[in-house]
Amino acid sequence: MTETRWLAQDEQRAWRGFLLASRLVMDQLNRELHESHGLSLTDYAILVRLSEEPDRRLRMTDLAASSGLSKSRLSHQMSRLEARGLTSRSACEDDARGMNAELTDAGFATLDAAAHVHVDGVRTHLLDLLEPEQVTGLAEWSERVVRHLDVDGRSGPLLPEVGF
Amino acid sequence: MTETRWLAQDEQRAWRGFLLASRLVMDQLNRELHESHGLSLTDYAILVRLSEEPDRRLRMTDLAASSGLSKSRLSHQMSRLEARGLTSRSACEDDARGMNAELTDAGFATLDAAAHVHVDGVRTHLLDLLEPEQVTGLAEWSERVVRHLDVDGRSGPLLPEVGF
Repeated sequence: MTETRWLAQDEQRAWRGFLLASRLVMDQLNRELHESHGLSLTDYAILVRLSEEPDRRLRMTDLAASSGLSKSRLSHQMSRLEARGLTSRSACEDDARGMNAELTDAGFATLDAAAHVHVDGVRTHLLDLLEPEQVTGLAEWSERVVRHLDVDGRSGPLLPEVGF
Repeated sequence: MTETRWLAQDEQRAWRGFLLASRLVMDQLNRELHESHGLSLTDYAILVRLSEEPDRRLRMTDLAASSGLSKSRLSHQMSRLEARGLTSRSACEDDARGMNAELTDAGFATLDAAAHVHVDGVRTHLLDLLEPEQVTGLAEWSERVVRHLDVDGRSGPLLPEVGF
């Protein structure tokens, strides 16, 4: 067993800040989306991911990987979204065992409305509090962390194709 | 209604990276603590927070605020930790309506063992992937985010007094 390298003061501040800031930011954005559109942040991320596909449709396995969700958690989320008519599921044409998730027109309209609230929140509670070079730095190191932990390499592009 | 300022490419990368990186890091650290010591990351954070108090005891309301947890979520966590003999609860001496949470000797021993696993994980999956100046930057801006969102100002010092 190798000796544990305990955290130095700066490292502790960074780790604890990351832990607490991410929890507080997620809770706040969750609350704002929920109050305005009855969506959780995870619901919202699923709708965004689907909206980025040319035909607004993605295999469930790919959607799970790119959302950082387990298959069972995604399945649970999709049932709730489907019950509200925001998404639908259907068998893949080229693989009977696979399922596709699809964004409905109602889902796109809801996303379109919720995006205003969400983007205002992301600015107010995170981006506006960072210096421009810290925004660039965060983009860079967070992608390094994602590549390191996403061992399947399935997260796909972090760059979305639409403006929200 | 003011016009929504949509996110520029760099801002989108930063926000999505933060979202996905924090989820992946938390999931990984959770998994490692769970497999080695049957603790969640939230359990661990509670034990650490208590261990930092001179008598390893803190009011439940202060513990909730400094852990970023709702009172009901903390209460649920505490029941599980208490059932394992890692913490205990008792009425505050100076306020009959208030409750104190306390770390037991068994809780301290478990924390002491789990800390090795946890710190190795924090280094491997986060800190070692950042440049030294990015670690300093993260400490600085994450504390800014915490101050902004922690409207009650109850999070307390982000700097712990012990080495884990």
